[in-house]
Order: sequence, then C-alpha cells, then structure tokens
Amino acid sequence: MDAPLRARVLVEAIPYVQRFSGRVVVVKYGGNALAGASGEDSVLQHFAEDVALMRAVRMLPVVVHGGGPQIGELMTRLGKIPEFHEGLRVTDAETLDIARMVLVGKVNRDIVGALNVQGALAVGCSGEDAGLITAAERDPALGFVGDVVAVDPTLVEHLVREGLVPVVATIGSDGAGQAYNINADTVAGAIAEAVGAEKLVFLTDVAGIRTDQGDPSSLLATTTADALDDLVASGAIGGGMVPKARACAHAVRHGVRSAHVLDGRVPHALLLELLSDEGVGTMVSAS
Amino acid sequence: MDAPLRARVLVEAIPYVQRFSGRVVVVKYGGNALAGASGEDSVLQHFAEDVALMRAVRMLPVVVHGGGPQIGELMTRLGKIPEFHEGLRVTDAETLDIARMVLVGKVNRDIVGALNVQGALAVGCSGEDAGLITAAERDPALGFVGDVVAVDPTLVEHLVREGLVPVVATIGSDGAGQAYNINADTVAGAIAEAVGAEKLVFLTDVAGIRTDQGDPSSLLATTTADALDDLVASGAIGGGMVPKARACAHAVRHGVRSAHVLDGRVPHALLLELLSDEGVGTMVSAS
Amino acid sequence: MDAPLRARVLVEAIPYVQRFSGRVVVVKYGGNALAGASGEDSVLQHFAEDVALMRAVRMLPVVVHGGGPQIGELMTRLGKIPEFHEGLRVTDAETLDIARMVLVGKVNRDIVGALNVQGALAVGCSGEDAGLITAAERDPALGFVGDVVAVDPTLVEHLVREGLVPVVATIGSDGAGQAYNINADTVAGAIAEAVGAEKLVFLTDVAGIRTDQGDPSSLLATTTADALDDLVASGAIGGGMVPKARACAHAVRHGVRSAHVLDGRVPHALLLELLSDEGVGTMVSAS
Amino acid sequence: MDAPLRARVLVEAIPYVQRFSGRVVVVKYGGNALAGASGEDSVLQHFAEDVALMRAVRMLPVVVHGGGPQIGELMTRLGKIPEFHEGLRVTDAETLDIARMVLVGKVNRDIVGALNVQGALAVGCSGEDAGLITAAERDPALGFVGDVVAVDPTLVEHLVREGLVPVVATIGSDGAGQAYNINADTVAGAIAEAVGAEKLVFLTDVAGIRTDQGDPSSLLATTTADALDDLVASGAIGGGMVPKARACAHAVRHGVRSAHVLDGRVPHALLLELLSDEGVGTMVSAS
Amino acid sequence: MDAPLRARVLVEAIPYVQRFSGRVVVVKYGGNALAGASGEDSVLQHFAEDVALMRAVRMLPVVVHGGGPQIGELMTRLGKIPEFHEGLRVTDAETLDIARMVLVGKVNRDIVGALNVQGALAVGCSGEDAGLITAAERDPALGFVGDVVAVDPTLVEHLVREGLVPVVATIGSDGAGQAYNINADTVAGAIAEAVGAEKLVFLTDVAGIRTDQGDPSSLLATTTADALDDLVASGAIGGGMVPKARACAHAVRHGVRSAHVLDGRVPHALLLELLSDEGVGTMVSAS
Amino acid sequence: MDAPLRARVLVEAIPYVQRFSGRVVVVKYGGNALAGASGEDSVLQHFAEDVALMRAVRMLPVVVHGGGPQIGELMTRLGKIPEFHEGLRVTDAETLDIARMVLVGKVNRDIVGALNVQGALAVGCSGEDAGLITAAERDPALGFVGDVVAVDPTLVEHLVREGLVPVVATIGSDGAGQAYNINADTVAGAIAEAVGAEKLVFLTDVAGIRTDQGDPSSLLATTTADALDDLVASGAIGGGMVPKARACAHAVRHGVRSAHVLDGRVPHALLLELLSDEGVGTMVSAS
Repeated sequence: MDAPLRARVLVEAIPYVQRFSGRVVVVKYGGNALAGASGEDSVLQHFAEDVALMRAVRMLPVVVHGGGPQIGELMTRLGKIPEFHEGLRVTDAETLDIARMVLVGKVNRDIVGALNVQGALAVGCSGEDAGLITAAERDPALGFVGDVVAVDPTLVEHLVREGLVPVVATIGSDGAGQAYNINADTVAGAIAEAVGAEKLVFLTDVAGIRTDQGDPSSLLATTTADALDDLVASGAIGGGMVPKARACAHAVRHGVRSAHVLDGRVPHALLLELLSDEGVGTMVSAS
Repeated sequence: MDAPLRARVLVEAIPYVQRFSGRVVVVKYGGNALAGASGEDSVLQHFAEDVALMRAVRMLPVVVHGGGPQIGELMTRLGKIPEFHEGLRVTDAETLDIARMVLVGKVNRDIVGALNVQGALAVGCSGEDAGLITAAERDPALGFVGDVVAVDPTLVEHLVREGLVPVVATIGSDGAGQAYNINADTVAGAIAEAVGAEKLVFLTDVAGIRTDQGDPSSLLATTTADALDDLVASGAIGGGMVPKARACAHAVRHGVRSAHVLDGRVPHALLLELLSDEGVGTMVSAS
Repeated sequence: MDAPLRARVLVEAIPYVQRFSGRVVVVKYGGNALAGASGEDSVLQHFAEDVALMRAVRMLPVVVHGGGPQIGELMTRLGKIPEFHEGLRVTDAETLDIARMVLVGKVNRDIVGALNVQGALAVGCSGEDAGLITAAERDPALGFVGDVVAVDPTLVEHLVREGLVPVVATIGSDGAGQAYNINADTVAGAIAEAVGAEKLVFLTDVAGIRTDQGDPSSLLATTTADALDDLVASGAIGGGMVPKARACAHAVRHGVRSAHVLDGRVPHALLLELLSDEGVGTMVSAS
Repeated sequence: MDAPLRARVLVEAIPYVQRFSGRVVVVKYGGNALAGASGEDSVLQHFAEDVALMRAVRMLPVVVHGGGPQIGELMTRLGKIPEFHEGLRVTDAETLDIARMVLVGKVNRDIVGALNVQGALAVGCSGEDAGLITAAERDPALGFVGDVVAVDPTLVEHLVREGLVPVVATIGSDGAGQAYNINADTVAGAIAEAVGAEKLVFLTDVAGIRTDQGDPSSLLATTTADALDDLVASGAIGGGMVPKARACAHAVRHGVRSAHVLDGRVPHALLLELLSDEGVGTMVSAS
Repeated sequence: MDAPLRARVLVEAIPYVQRFSGRVVVVKYGGNALAGASGEDSVLQHFAEDVALMRAVRMLPVVVHGGGPQIGELMTRLGKIPEFHEGLRVTDAETLDIARMVLVGKVNRDIVGALNVQGALAVGCSGEDAGLITAAERDPALGFVGDVVAVDPTLVEHLVREGLVPVVATIGSDGAGQAYNINADTVAGAIAEAVGAEKLVFLTDVAGIRTDQGDPSSLLATTTADALDDLVASGAIGGGMVPKARACAHAVRHGVRSAHVLDGRVPHALLLELLSDEGVGTMVSAS
Repeated sequence: MDAPLRARVLVEAIPYVQRFSGRVVVVKYGGNALAGASGEDSVLQHFAEDVALMRAVRMLPVVVHGGGPQIGELMTRLGKIPEFHEGLRVTDAETLDIARMVLVGKVNRDIVGALNVQGALAVGCSGEDAGLITAAERDPALGFVGDVVAVDPTLVEHLVREGLVPVVATIGSDGAGQAYNINADTVAGAIAEAVGAEKLVFLTDVAGIRTDQGDPSSLLATTTADALDDLVASGAIGGGMVPKARACAHAVRHGVRSAHVLDGRVPHALLLELLSDEGVGTMVSAS
C-alpha cells in the first residue's frame, strides 16, 4: 500500500480512537459464531485480535455471549429429551445445570482462553457473580428461564477500570440464590444500558438488518429505534433477530449512543465498524 | 447464657478481630464437603455464614475449591471410562472439558450462590482468568494434569480490595491458552503465598492431623513444617492428607503466618478457629 | 465454655461489629463512677478495657465526663463555703477556677491515664479547645454556670479520624474567652448530635430508667423520646436523671440513632450493650 | 511613618516569611511571664497576638509552658509545706496532683483562652495525651519528678497540620500510667527536636544570655552550642538559665536550626526576632 | 528604625498577607514605565522585586503589559508611516506583524528576563496561547485592532497554581487563527475578571485618578465604579486614563474585589499598596 | 479502499498507538519548512494536522523550531550588515534583539497559530521562560551566540501533562538574565534528553541521511550513533546536517529511544513514521 492511502486511513481513524477512548463498548458474541465447522477457530481468533486492539487504544470492551448450540449438544450426549412450550425450551433443574455448565464452564472458558492468548487479560464472569444480574422467572411453564430484573454493574465497572475485559455468561439469580438461564441478546442490552456504554454491538452470522429477508439489497446501513419497532411489528424482522432488534431499540432509547448489528464473518468487522467512516452492517440511533 | 460468660467470649475474640482485620485468609473448601448426602446443605450454609461473618469484621476471605467426586459423577453419566496411570487419573481433552464444566460451571457456581445468599458478594473465578494461574503439564502420561508454574495474584487482590470474595476453581492455563486441571490443595497454598495471606485453612472431613491415623488421641493441636515433613516421610501421613500437609509446610515457610487443617463438619469451625483462644483442629507454624 | 455456645455469641456479635464500625459512640462517664471507695479502680479499669475493645473493632468512642464530687472535695479543702441559688451551686470566679482545675487537671487526667494504659491513645480535651463548646451564662445569679450555645465538632472529628479517643472535660467559653462550667450530661448529648453519633451512652450507678423509682421491676428495657418527656413531666423521673433523660430525648430527635442509660457497675456493661441482642439497661429511640 | 521606611521593613521581612512558612517554631512561655502583678494581662495578650500573626503567615507555632509560681501558690493555700532535696522540690503524690491541676487545669487553660480570643484555635495538651511524653523517675528521693525518656510527636504534628496551635503542659507519664512533673525548658527542647522544628524560642524575663550576669553590656547577640557549654561549665551561666542553655545547645546539635533566648517583656519580641534582620535577644547556632 | 515602629509595620502587614494568600493579583505594567530614559532599569527592577515578594508571601501575581512606544519605534526604523482613523492607529498586516514581534518578542521578553533574575520563574505568554484571548475585529477601518470576545483562563490558572508568574502580551486571535492587537488595559481587566482576581492594579506614570487633571489636590484615594463612570462621562477623566477607568469599573462590578491605579514611579508602590493600611494611589470599589 | 486493506493499516497502527501513548515526542520543525514560496501554507498545515492527531492518540508532542531565514530577512529590512567569524554569524546586541523578535514574536506565533486552528492548544515558549534553557556564551568573538548549559524541563513537562503542546523558540538566558541565540537542532536534542522523550524527530527538506550526498540510493533507512559519528568524521555528512546528526547520536546515547530525520515535504510524514511499519526517512538507534 502506498503512503498516501495509508495516511488517509490513519487520518480517518484517529478521531474515532479519540472519541471512543475510555468508553465502554459491549459486544454480544453469538454462540453460532463459535459453533461453525472449520472456520471456527479463525472467527474466534479474529474476534480476539479485535478485542485486544480495542483495549490497546483504551476502549473498554465488555463481551457477552450465549451458547444455545453447545447446550443442545451436551443435552443430547446426556440423553436428555428437549421439551417445548409455545416454541420455547422448557428448562427444568437438570437442564439449567447443563446450561450453566456449558455456558460458564465451556463457552465462557473458550472465549476467555482465546482472548488471553492475545494478552487481553479477560476475566470470565457469570451474571450470578457479585449481584451482576438479578433475574426472575419468566413463565412457570418454562421453568428456570429468566427475565432481567436489575443489573448491578459494579463488578463490570471495576474490571474495566482495572484494564480487564469481562466476559459475561448470561446466567442470573434471584434473591434466594435460584439461578436462571436468560436470553443473551437481552442481557447484552441491559448491561450496555447499566454501564452507560458508548456502543452495543451484535456480532452475528448475517450481514445486518434487512427490510426484506430475502433481498440482500434491502440491507439497512443506518436506522432508528422507531423504524426497528415498525419492522418488528410488521413481521419484516423475525426469528432470532427480534430480541437483537428489541435490545438495540431499547438501548439507544436508554443512554447508549448507538447499537450495531454486524456480520461477524467479515474479518475485523468490529475494528472496521469502530474506526472508519464506513460501517460494515446496520447502525441504530435513537432518532 | 449469662452476661459474664458472654463478656468473656467477646473480650477474648476482639483482639483476634483486630489482628486479622484487613488480612487475607485463604480457605480451601473440599469437594467432599459439598458431596455429602443429607448434611450437604447444612455444611455449605454454615460455611457461607462464616465467610460472611469474616467479611463483616474486615477479614479478606479467598475461597479455593476442588470437585473430584462431582467430576467423576458427570464422567459416569457421559459413559466415560476412567483410566489411571500410577494411581492418578489420566486426563484427556474430553475429561478436561468435563472437569472444567463441573468445576467452573457447577461446583464454583454452587458455592458462589450459597455465599451470595448471605450477602457476601462472591465472584467466581477460574485460574485461567487474568493470568491468575500459569500451569504446565506434569507428566505426558497423565494428559492435561498441571502443576502450578506461577500465580499472578493481581485479580484476586483487586477483588478483595473491593470487598468481594473470590471463589477460585483450580483450572490453570499455559501461555498458548491450553487449560490444565490442578490439585486444589496445591493451588490454595500457592495463592496464599502469592497474596501474602495471614492464614491458609483446609476445611476437611477429618478432625485434623494425627500422628497415628487409627488413634484419635494422636491428634496434633499444633505442629511445625519440619514435623509435617517427617510425618509425610515416615508415612504416618498418607492419602489425600499428603498434598494438604505439603501445602501447609510450604506456605508457612514462604510468608504465610499459619496454616490450619480443620474439621469442616463442626458447625462454625472456621469462626471458632479464627476468633477464640482454643482452635478446633491442627495449626501449623513455620517453627 | 463449649464450642456451640461460644459460636453463638460470636455469630450474634459480628453483625453489631459490622454495623457500628466507623461510627461514633459518645459515652458519658459519671463523676460518681470515679468516686467510689474501694471499687473505684476496678470500675475505671473495666471501662478503659471496654473503650480499648471498641477501638479494636473500629468503633469511634468519645468520652465525656463530669466531676461534681471531686470539685466539692477540693472546695472543702480550700475552705470555700458552697452557696446555692434555687438549688443550684453559685459559681463565682474562684469556684470556676477550682472546677476547671479539678475537671481538666484531675478527673480528665485520671481517665486519660487509665485509657492509655490499655493502649487506647486517649487525648484529654476541654470544651475551650479549638472552639469545641461555645457557652453562655445561664443565669446571672448562678455566676459562671453555662449553657451550650454551639458545638464545633471539628477537633473531636479530627481526633477520632486519627484513631485517637477524645476525653472531654465540660468547660466551655464565650467569644470573649470567659470560661463556664456546664452540665456534663447536656454536653454529652450536644456533642453526640454535632458529630452525628450512632449512640449516646450514659454510664451511671443505677440499673437504668424506672417508671417508679422505688420499684426495681419498673425498669424500662426500651422507651421513646415522647415517653421520657411524659415521665419527666409527671415527676416519675427526677433528680440527676432529669438532664440525662432530656439529653437522651433531644439526641434521638436530632440524628443520634439511639441513646442508652446503663449500669456502669456491671462489668463490661458497655461491651454487652453494644455487641449482644440483649442490652443491660434502658435504650431510648426516636419513636 | 513615611513610605520608604515602611517599604524597607516589608522588603526585609518577606524573605523570613517565606523561609519559615510551613516550619514549626516551638515557643517556651515561662510561668513567670504569667505571674507578673499589673503587667500580666498585657504580656500574655501581646504573646497571643504574636502567635496569631505567626499562624497568619503559615508558621506552625507550638507553645510549651511551665507554672512553678502558680503551683507554689496553690500548695500554700492548701497548707502544704514544701520539702526540698539537694535544692529541688520533693514531689509526693499530693504535690503531683496539685502540680497537674495547676499546669493542665489552670495555666494551660489561661494561655489557651488568651490565644483563642485572637482566633488562634489553640488546643491544650498534656504530655500524657496520646503518648506525647514518656517519662521516668529522675531520683527516688525527689518523688514524681521526671526525665524525658521519649517524645512521640504524632499528636502535635497532627494538630499543627490541621492549623491548630498545641499548648503543652509538661506532665509526662510512664508505661504504667504514672504521671511525673518535668522541667518545662527540657520538654520544650525535646519537642523541638522530635518535630524537627526550625526554631526553639525561650521567652524569658531577662534580656538574653550574658557572659557576666552583672554586666548588661556582656549580652550575647549570637553564640554557639560549644560556647554555651563553656559558660555553663564555668558558672558564668547559672540558676534557671542553666536548663535553658542546655536545651538550646542540645537542640541545635539535634536538628533544630536555631535556638533563641528572648526578652518576653519587649512587646512583640517574638515577631521582631522572627521577621527582621536584627534580633532582640541571644541566638544559638550549632557552630 | 527602632523596634516599636518596626513591630507596628509588621503587625499591620500580616493580616494583609493572610487575606491575600493564594489570591490572584493582576498587574498591568505600562509600556511607558519601560520606556523611560535613565530611570528605566530602576523602575523595572523595583517592579520585579515587588513581584518576587508577592510570590514569597503566596500571592499569585499575573502581569499584563502593552508596549505602544516600542511598537512605534520599530515602525519608524522600518520606514513604516503610521496611518490614523478617528485618532486610532490603523493596523495593517505588516503593522500587526511588527506589533506582535515587539510585544511578544521584545517587551514581554524584557519583563520575563527582569523577573527571572529575581528568581520569580516568570513565563511569557501571548493571548494566542492555549486559547487565552479570543478576539474579534473592532472596526474594519482600523484593520487588525481587536476587542476581547472571551477569555479562557485555564492556562493562566495552571501556571499560577504551579507557582509560576504569567506575563501576558496582549495579542488575541479569532477562531480562524487571525491575530489582533488589543488594548492592554482592557485585557488586564478581562483576565482579572476571568480568573476571579482579588485585585486589578494599573501601574502608571501618574499619581492616581484626579477629578481635576490640573489640580494635584484633587487626587482620589478611594472611589467607586459609579463615580468613575460619571468622571468619564463628564470628561474629567480623559486620554489614556479612560480605558483604565473603564476596566476598573467593569472589573469591580464583575467579581474583582478592588481595582487600583498606582504611581509606578514610587519605589515599591505595589508592595505598599498591598500590605499597608494607607495606599499610594486610587482604590476603586464596587460601591 | 476496500475493507481488508483498511483493516491491515489499522491492525498495524494500533500497537504503535499503544506503545507511544503517554510518551513525549520532540519534533524539530525547521525554519526552511516555513520559508518555502508557494508550498508554505500546505506544509505547515499538514504538520499542524499531524500534531493534532498525535495528541488525539495521547502522544505528547513538543515542538522546537529555529528561524534562520526569517531572521536574515528582518536584518536586511533594517539595513543591518551581517558579519561573520569563522563562518558563523556574529550576534551583537541589536542582532540578538532582532533574532528574539523574529523567533519568539513571529515564527513561534505562526506555528502556534497554525496548531491552534486544529484545536491543538499550543503554547508558545522561549527557553528564557521558567528557567527552561540556561545558556552560556560560546565564543566571545561571536557575541550572543549560546551553548546549552542546562535544561530544566519542569515547564515543558507541566504543559504536556495538562494536554497542551509546547512550541519552543530557542533563546536561552544565563543567571544574570542575558539572552543568547542557540542552534535549534541542539536545543531539540537537549530537551528530548531532559524530558526522557521516546523519540526525537527532525522534520527537514531532504529525504533523510545519505552516505553519499550525491547519490539518492545511499539513503539510510536505519543507522546507529556510532555510524553517524563515522559519517560526520569522514565528511560524508556535512553542512546543516551535522548538528542534526550530532543531536541524534547524543540523544539516543542519553535515554531517547530513537531519533529520526524525516522528509517534511512528504504529506503526513510524521504520522506515517510514527504509526506504520515502514518509516519515511532515517531512524537512528543507540546501537
């Protein structure tokens, strides 16, 4: 690359570095991104590199993750038959134990391990730690599936202030110590709001938000909370994108400056979105 | 209880409260203590109460735990046949995954949950977090069984300074991100030394250290590092007590003021040992 | 004492230790308590031990004292004939000089000396020091008998923050430097209010507050500011208990959490009242 | 006064203000200075004004005082017959009590009162407070007459850091809590050394140190520690000037920059000595 | 001078030292004061001594200066013909360059040099530095003559907090980086207001403000902002005194405690005005 | 530019950002760079942009400048005939005055103005300010040409800590206040050493250091202090490059990590050298 081009990228990136220095960026890293067949290592490694670079320029990354596919896999190995209620998995005590072991003891560990190879000094957390996530039962018919009642961001704030990267598994607990499994997109949004994050970023395996699922050209580069509400209401947004869209809309209405749905399959998608004029997915603003 | 007796206990306890205020006490809580049939809840709850009381008087408890019985249980459910080498369990990649899920995602969570019901603001950690425990392979024939190479106590020190209680699962990792399962007694001793703990306490299911296993009257109230070495060399101390004895002797020779082997089955054993003139197990000093 | 009883006392005491840590407790120590014939040393020594133990668990004791009997004794030796006006001693310039010498130069010194033998690092103060107590003449007919006009708690707060125990003699002064002798019960209450004390404790030579002076069974374990007002109004409370009762009622209405009238003759009464569920005198709350 | 003269005084004084800012000056104020018949108020008032002005320009004054004449007066009133041993007063328990009452409860109070009228925020202390002066018996035949064993300047340093003026009565105590009366000149020197004072000043009722007591023209403007030793050895210095001379010589050999013997009867002697090129008494340097 | 007179000067000065300690005093030092033929060195040297003494007693001096005569001199040497518009000098780009070189590169340097010989640690600044003075064009016909739009006192405050003496040349700039020459009296007043100065002092070559220019006996010792307005309106104040009078009146109405017009030819005029009861010029108060 | 290229530039730059964060970079900006005919504005503007971007990523730039051509220009206008001694300009008092006016009042101002348009909050300084550069006469025959005797970096360090950019004109002064003109390359090196700079950068109008002046292909990408010494000794380096080469060699031997000679005519040369793997001139290391 010749010098003028190189200079242009730097001249463009530096104001972003300055603007985001010392600001928290909450990144939801999907379980799917971990589960891919051969590309798996590569995606996780690029992600870990980007998180390390974010820290190098004094951004304060917080990683939140789920792990649906991995939970299903262990249930299968243990001969546990999944049960459903209105399309959602019923989580009995044994299923909760399995989910917790997989999320906290496996997926969380794999991400922490990959980050620490980059020197990122990641620390694995569960929402149960230090009262991070207080949860409540969503529906008796679903068992130990929880909603977020409150987030106490003290632990996460402590860790980022010390230069560490919290990696949060989305198990919460109630006052009596009962644990619940919670949707990771919702938790990511709730933490972003509680810490007053600059950005909330969903790393997914799609290119962004489309107004027409079947039409790649309908990809939105930018949108607003109201427009997202309409797309969800009209059914144009469906499936697993619904909790992400809702979390984005809620977050930008509650103090988070912007929310992003990015294609995690693009190498260094996170870095390009954060440090250049042209993003690589959909950016959601309050208005 | 009448007033004079009550006054005597308080007059006796307060100097200990003062002496241990602001000092770290590392407590190894055994997997066996968690695994008991009907008494299980009760032992864990008393333990959690004692840890909460330690924090109330400004001691800085750090909990380290193993989980052998629980690992074996999940292996059995997954149809995994244990393999042994010179009496030690061979830990292949799948066994390591199981151990990590159980230790970090189950046992650690149960202890954190019990402590947080007491308001103790526990935070679960693994030795992999923030470079806490650097490990190396012990013996190729054993697979992913590790020795402690180094302890970086920064994370633990940070958490205790914030008034939180670290609960440490004894998985370590090497520079390349490979995880290892490590003996929890050894880890407890290494952390106590690294943080310059006042005390290292092993909560066990025996009454303390005996010079003659078969003779309850041979229980030692106090002993020294040298005496412990002799008892191990002579075979008077054997089995699971060996790594505890070694950790005690090493710790008191490396800056820990005293080490204790207590009977965790005695209600509030921890509190009685810490705050009264008469201990309830064996206390080990440097000399 | 066996282990379970011992554990129960500790489990009961620790929450009080935690609650009162870093909080100021103002203790009025009566001149009578010092004047006793043979038991004198013993009472003062137990008191000094209790103050030392309070400091050991990070409470912040402030001692206020009077010294009526000792003032009378020196007056007698100097051949000074007491004069009275409506039942109160007339304090001319010479009497004031005597009172000041006895309170600041004798009683205060005896208490400071006893505390410092316990390592408590007591510092004797007079209300004249650093503007601690601004006083004004109560009644021209009484001479240099003062009322408290204002308390500047800066000096007392400095000393307790440094880990020292202020011992306050109740001489105040006005803007022109004129000194006044002031009722010690009133001063204790005023200082407790000014520093926002957790507790105000009167160590007396009676068992507590009774609704019927002649009936030991009428002792009140707990009462309220309003009830005290009624007892004073009805004459059920009389004599030297009146200023104590008034100071208690005023203090709990002005930010002091609770006020106590204890029997200083019970060994370690202070410690038992502060650190156990069952008090040893009368506790006064706002309502 | 015309402008050029006024300017010359200021131009001369300001470098001294700068040099002594933030430095401790220990001033011994003699009991004689307080005992004078008609001039009494005036001398004490000028002294109080000078101390207030020292504080105004950020010097850190510490006042130490004796009170021999006043002790004698109260002994007489109480019908106590003085007893002597080799020219020094024997101090039995009752005499000590009297001395303590007079020094701490009368002389100290009068100085504190005079200073506080100037807004100087004086705080009376005794050497017994917070371990300030540890004393030991000088000679069994003398009773409770003490020597200085150690000075713990923490309390004094704390008070001056808070902008307060400590006024120290020279009673010390031993580890068992026994009080002793100590020569005030000696205490002033010991405190000056312990706090690393810039200056030690004796305010006396003579013009300074003379080599020939009977010859006013033999007054020394400056002298050295060695020269003082010679004058004491030769008897040229005698009486009450001996402990002052010894304290001056010891102090300048132990870190105090200079020691001064001033004529306290000259109005504002302290200010003139501190802030002008020409002193008003004798200045002692190390060499 | 004898001791009582000396003491009187000190007793009078110290309260001023205390009152002005840590307070900013902005001194406008006139270009004329620098331009005098033979007395030049002497006036600047006395001024430098006074500034050094102000710092010694912890006042925070800020010097502002002009340099009209010196600008005219260089213009003459460069053969530049002055042009006037309604009595004010037209400042084209070349004239501005000359003014800037003279003010920043010559007059400012001479003052900084003289101060630093006194150890005053002066730092030369221009209003262009760190956004100190934002200016705007006054009148297109005048070219680069500016008015003060805003003062950002951050740099000046930084420097005085570090114990340095800012010496400010009165060039300002607009947002596009265009420089302007600004009246130094106006700048001095604007800086005094922006830093919340205690005093604003104009050192001039006249004795103070007179109500009748021709009558020395009409000199005002004290006056008010309103009275000054009247004198300017009536023409009693004219010429170069007008911007000084306006700056004084504006400053005392905007938070500056008092403003002074002094005769800089009187040796140590600054010190005498600041530290004695009788000033040496005119003092202006808000009312 | 496509995403992968963009990502590569960022991934490469971030480690440099991290490494240089909080580190001082001293940049010598040559008078020639300011004097160019048509390209003048553009070079200064690109330089100002780069300095602003350095600050944005928390580097701490310090600018040092000369101004030989501009001094010569004003001398000519004032009809001053240059005089030379052994090839160096003789600097009499008038020449010094001219040099100081031009450097401090013109060149320094132009750089400060250009930086402040970028929001860089530049502050112009002279070596005379706050004792920054103590100088001494180099050779009586040369007049007021100085050598650097000492650098007191306090002012520069203070300004960079406050987020400001010092721009230093290279006039120094001796203890008596006499000013001297000093070679700017030498001053840049001395300041870099005194502040412990990470880098010392010379922005010149040549491509870097060549071993053969006439052969562009002899340009050195990297070299060492010893190699530079040899090139100067052999005459391969000559003219104005000699003081630069000497300053580079001295600096890297005295704590500066690396020194650079860059081609200031390349847009953003500074940024490219600092933030990419391939430099754009010659880098000098200690060995």
